Amino acid sequence: MEGLKYVGKRIPKKDAPLKATGQAVYIQDLKLPGMLYGKILYSKYPHAKILRLDVSKAAALPGVRAVLTGADVPNNFKFGFLKDNPPLKSGKVLSTRDEIAAVAAITQEIADEAVDLIEVEYEELPGIFDPIEAMKEGAALLHEETKSNVLKLPWKFVNGDVEAAKKESAFIAEDSYTTQWVTHCCLGTSGCVASFDVSNNLTIYSNTQIPSLAQNDFLEALKVFGLKNKRVRVIQNTIGGGFGSKLDTYAYEYIAILLALRTRKPVKVVFSREEEFLATSPRQPTITRISQGCDGNGKLTFREIEMVLDNGAYTSWGATTPSVMMVPISSLYKVPNIKYTAKCVYTNNTYSQAFRGYGNPQATFAIESCLDELAIKAGIDPVEIRRINANEPGEVTPQNFRITSCGLKDCIEEVVNRLDWKNKHGKRNGRGVGMASLIHVGGAARVYKSDGCGTIIKVDDNGKVDVITGSSEIGQGSETIIAQIVAEVLGVGMDDINVINNDTDVCPWDVGVHASRTTFVAGNSALGAAEKIKAQIMEIAAKNLGEPVEALDMQDGVIFSKNDREKNIPLAKVLRKAHYTLGGRMLVAENFYDPPNENFDQTFRGNLSVAYAYGTHGVEVEVDRETGQVKILNYIAAHDVGKAINPMLLEGQIYGGGLQGVGYALGERMIWDRGYLKNGNFLDYKMPTVRDIPPVQAVIVESDEQAGPFGAKGIGEPGLVPTAPAIANAVYDAVGVRIKDLPITPEKVLRALKEKEGQKV
Amino acid sequence: MEGLKYVGKRIPKKDAPLKATGQAVYIQDLKLPGMLYGKILYSKYPHAKILRLDVSKAAALPGVRAVLTGADVPNNFKFGFLKDNPPLKSGKVLSTRDEIAAVAAITQEIADEAVDLIEVEYEELPGIFDPIEAMKEGAALLHEETKSNVLKLPWKFVNGDVEAAKKESAFIAEDSYTTQWVTHCCLGTSGCVASFDVSNNLTIYSNTQIPSLAQNDFLEALKVFGLKNKRVRVIQNTIGGGFGSKLDTYAYEYIAILLALRTRKPVKVVFSREEEFLATSPRQPTITRISQGCDGNGKLTFREIEMVLDNGAYTSWGATTPSVMMVPISSLYKVPNIKYTAKCVYTNNTYSQAFRGYGNPQATFAIESCLDELAIKAGIDPVEIRRINANEPGEVTPQNFRITSCGLKDCIEEVVNRLDWKNKHGKRNGRGVGMASLIHVGGAARVYKSDGCGTIIKVDDNGKVDVITGSSEIGQGSETIIAQIVAEVLGVGMDDINVINNDTDVCPWDVGVHASRTTFVAGNSALGAAEKIKAQIMEIAAKNLGEPVEALDMQDGVIFSKNDREKNIPLAKVLRKAHYTLGGRMLVAENFYDPPNENFDQTFRGNLSVAYAYGTHGVEVEVDRETGQVKILNYIAAHDVGKAINPMLLEGQIYGGGLQGVGYALGERMIWDRGYLKNGNFLDYKMPTVRDIPPVQAVIVESDEQAGPFGAKGIGEPGLVPTAPAIANAVYDAVGVRIKDLPITPEKVLRALKEKEGQKV
Repeated sequence: MEGLKYVGKRIPKKDAPLKATGQAVYIQDLKLPGMLYGKILYSKYPHAKILRLDVSKAAALPGVRAVLTGADVPNNFKFGFLKDNPPLKSGKVLSTRDEIAAVAAITQEIADEAVDLIEVEYEELPGIFDPIEAMKEGAALLHEETKSNVLKLPWKFVNGDVEAAKKESAFIAEDSYTTQWVTHCCLGTSGCVASFDVSNNLTIYSNTQIPSLAQNDFLEALKVFGLKNKRVRVIQNTIGGGFGSKLDTYAYEYIAILLALRTRKPVKVVFSREEEFLATSPRQPTITRISQGCDGNGKLTFREIEMVLDNGAYTSWGATTPSVMMVPISSLYKVPNIKYTAKCVYTNNTYSQAFRGYGNPQATFAIESCLDELAIKAGIDPVEIRRINANEPGEVTPQNFRITSCGLKDCIEEVVNRLDWKNKHGKRNGRGVGMASLIHVGGAARVYKSDGCGTIIKVDDNGKVDVITGSSEIGQGSETIIAQIVAEVLGVGMDDINVINNDTDVCPWDVGVHASRTTFVAGNSALGAAEKIKAQIMEIAAKNLGEPVEALDMQDGVIFSKNDREKNIPLAKVLRKAHYTLGGRMLVAENFYDPPNENFDQTFRGNLSVAYAYGTHGVEVEVDRETGQVKILNYIAAHDVGKAINPMLLEGQIYGGGLQGVGYALGERMIWDRGYLKNGNFLDYKMPTVRDIPPVQAVIVESDEQAGPFGAKGIGEPGLVPTAPAIANAVYDAVGVRIKDLPITPEKVLRALKEKEGQKV
Repeated sequence: MEGLKYVGKRIPKKDAPLKATGQAVYIQDLKLPGMLYGKILYSKYPHAKILRLDVSKAAALPGVRAVLTGADVPNNFKFGFLKDNPPLKSGKVLSTRDEIAAVAAITQEIADEAVDLIEVEYEELPGIFDPIEAMKEGAALLHEETKSNVLKLPWKFVNGDVEAAKKESAFIAEDSYTTQWVTHCCLGTSGCVASFDVSNNLTIYSNTQIPSLAQNDFLEALKVFGLKNKRVRVIQNTIGGGFGSKLDTYAYEYIAILLALRTRKPVKVVFSREEEFLATSPRQPTITRISQGCDGNGKLTFREIEMVLDNGAYTSWGATTPSVMMVPISSLYKVPNIKYTAKCVYTNNTYSQAFRGYGNPQATFAIESCLDELAIKAGIDPVEIRRINANEPGEVTPQNFRITSCGLKDCIEEVVNRLDWKNKHGKRNGRGVGMASLIHVGGAARVYKSDGCGTIIKVDDNGKVDVITGSSEIGQGSETIIAQIVAEVLGVGMDDINVINNDTDVCPWDVGVHASRTTFVAGNSALGAAEKIKAQIMEIAAKNLGEPVEALDMQDGVIFSKNDREKNIPLAKVLRKAHYTLGGRMLVAENFYDPPNENFDQTFRGNLSVAYAYGTHGVEVEVDRETGQVKILNYIAAHDVGKAINPMLLEGQIYGGGLQGVGYALGERMIWDRGYLKNGNFLDYKMPTVRDIPPVQAVIVESDEQAGPFGAKGIGEPGLVPTAPAIANAVYDAVGVRIKDLPITPEKVLRALKEKEGQKV
């Protein structure tokens, strides 16, 4: 890996100048000729019958071009993971984010005004807002066609014999941990513009993270709407943050489509900030009962977890997060006996979706908090119990994950050393240190039947390279990473490379931006395409230089003999020689990379990812015993990333993850009070801002993953996974109280401190 | 060729609904955020010194963002075939279309007003408006750096011994023929929008017919402007007619680029109709001295042509039309001895460019008019002399054209029969019949070093196909033809195919829309790509059906065994099987087709085209002896097209060509009076309209060209090539006068009739 010129370098993001100068076109900026503006009316109540819905005044408002209600949704169309969600609801509403009518008008102001003119008469019904209540026998059913509010999903993993292991364990720690709703807080709110051509083919500009899957979703919707054999083109405008929020298709998109169909005009629906809070799908709240045991030497014997997730009123991909929660549950540290079950339960709350980490933060909060408790019970230093049980290369975990590269032990030591653990731990003097580790998929994740990504590369006569990739730039830097990989292979400059990644008409298929897979999968795909191009170039150059291909190398736009650098030919000359000849050709190559990972079998076993990412976070906190305030004094985030393609972007992922993790750990919470969102704005939601950035020190551990592009593994999600338990463990170390319910607010700390004092008295 | 489902069918144009409903986005419709509007100031005189140019009032007008003059063109940049044309002229102007200043403003109205505020003081100079005058010794030089007004271009072709042949000829006809300026009259006027990103990469939306070559031109310009190593992206909006007018880059494009660079905003320059007449480049006027001879049996012995072309003040590709004029001169009918020279001469007139036929109509007017004269001298029926000398398959012409398919004789017979030649010819009763034939490149034309076109095809899981082609849709129907070819190969429907053909970022290279090459070259390129995809599909299907690939066929989205149609599998299923498997793939294929034709050698020999198109037009006219008016009673246009991929579009080409040819023959003429355009508008220019459509009967002769896609040859240009001489010959047959100067106006006919009567008296 020596002599790399672009890979491993701190190269600024390719899209940075556009974004810094305001030239990037976000959905908010997009305007098509004749475009109308849509607006959605949401339910007033979390659970109610609609007795009367009168849109006549709205329809009569000058400038209004269409008003739709549930009656206008053709053929009972429903979307979502379980197809339980109509884009406009009829008869009954199940949450306060239920869409019941929508308007298209010639200006946004008129659309807003029209929505206010819609008259609705409700009969309020009692709601269920607690998943435990919803599971009780006799609880009213949210969806009458189901026989239970518990979703029929197979979330169960068993390995070994937990009951036997319990009996043999020297120490057992057991407790319940709970987590809250948090939302993605994308700075670019959700939105789309739907437009039909005269043949009823759909073009939709959208913030989606899953262009190819969204294309399929919309195609299916068109079929239900009676439009057979149509084409759907998904174009992604510049996206102002994703974090998993855009891993599904949503009511607002189908509403824009239906309004566009009705009006024969492009229709734009863009969320206000308040709508973004109300009507996007947050991280699911969990109730986790966990018990873990170890033998007398601190070796883990079993892990048992029962989990309940509030699914909300409808089902998106959030209901599948238990499958990813299994990754740390089965495979974080070596644990021979595992039992895990999870239930997703309908309530009249908001419904949840993917959010960075995809369930991993919730599971890891329970595992790593409980592990510290176990260490205390066993009288072992929390570092030591992690060292003893740390994963290692070559291991096969209970879920049959084949661990190739694994830098977990290195990450632990980095944290121990940089945090000065020895001197800082166990003082109980208001200052404390804590740590937590993570495992996550780092070589893609075979959630769908395909986990692939296609790339087409074409090179022009001047050595300029167009890379058409299935992957999407959502701000994470994928186009820069892909350009670095291609530049490295082809020996051309970063400015010579143009990455095209936002249009299903021209971009090959990709499963989407999720599972920290883009650098690994799209990177490998681009690498393969670039190597095909390089082989073509080398073959032509070899003929021209009279040297064997093996003797040649390419750098800075010149191909030369490794034996004699005087023997060289510029790349552009090779390209022209290939092109400007009888029977000439332009160099184009395509490559589809589908990683050799496995779908789970019915027992949830299978090598989900080609490689696994590891990391350990360590924090030093100071707890104010007067206020309960937790202050982060030091934060070490050590990550095994295989290889840092771009250390600057990678650090950005770690800093961003750390900040998001701190928000999750210490303050962020959507307050849904009996179905009503009480803090749906930035003022009340209190996302950490630039003033709250913790002093994160990003430590990159390179384990050189053989299957990764230049050795890289994924790093998109891990940055926030272990933050909350690391902080919870540090708080315990500082003041001796354990907060088991996120977020760790000053109020909770203070209450716990008082209770503890009370006990002492 | 039996059993074809899409090829050979009358399928409506794919873009017709968009155009019919106004959804197509022409350059006129395009609006980018922050866009400014440009306007150009042209010279008041055809030849003058600029003594003073004061832009201060224009620059001071509120809303004006930039005013540029020749002083603002960096590094003495010039463009055009001989790089003799600065986008803004300094010091001296050489024609009334010389650009001397340009404005960018926030509205078009302000830009127009600002241009009027520019003060220019000229010293008028005497001009040269006649190429014959310009060639005289001592004539003032337009470009002082040249030593002669005659361009240094090598237009000369010699075969055999013309002088000896003259002596041996039984009959010789000799005369001079002249042609006029005509302009393309595109209904969509010229225009572009130039836009720079923050890194000074250029995106230009343009009506160009040559996206890849224009990209190179602009890249070169940026280099001269001091912007090295930049990217240029050319996007073609919907184009409202090309006809060759957009085969070069123009001052207005460079002006838009310079204005955009200066203002840092997108700048749009769109021509008014008056500018479109004044400042686009028409067909070059020619003065042709021709002599042809035959032996006693009517067999042609020699053809000698000396030609002078008015090049105007600057040089575009029009100066290279003599190379294409050589095609009929050397190879229309069998002529053993040939001598041809052509001179392009600078004058203070407008400069010329490509126009459908690229010189062929001018040459064929002389050849075919003179051939009738020769027949008369030899006492042979004009049909007979053409039959005797007609080209045949297997022939190698004096320029080394290897004639493969050739339906010329069939075309002649179709005209003879359908026109009832036997009964109508030779009556001199005011009604007459005439005919003329054509040869043109029909299998591309190797003008550049590459004559290729690339195609990328990708197929999605539902069997929807994206065809990314280098070729451009300029209204001629290329995307429909390409879709038909791909649909035929892949056995999918027309609606399943999306053709992407307007963006250099994603489209492979192509040399441009010229030389009737698109169906042949882009068609073959698409055919090859589709066959690669089909091979992949068949291989997968074979595995699934347990049948050998050879036994399979594909139709209507289903692959089946030819032996047992019950053994079948839907295409979409094959695609999903290929994709949704471990190590899966999406089907993508690319193909670059560069035809095996040849660049001319220094003697202008070489097989320029892989195949040659032939045709014969026959007309019956009625000449009003009172008014001189020529009325077309019947018009047979028989064309050897190899194979009609889409007879409806093909007939459209023939009808359109016929109408354009009739305009050229009977009325159209740009009146440039000592450098001033006198009829630069539709009212005075009198292009034929829908009311003037002649009763053209399109006759398709299919000669099944082996090298063509499904047997097809090019047909874009031929439709207007033989129109003028066919009409001239018919006029002669009707009233015994020959008009040798186009257009054949009533005035000229009347004058000729009077002269003839005068002679008789």
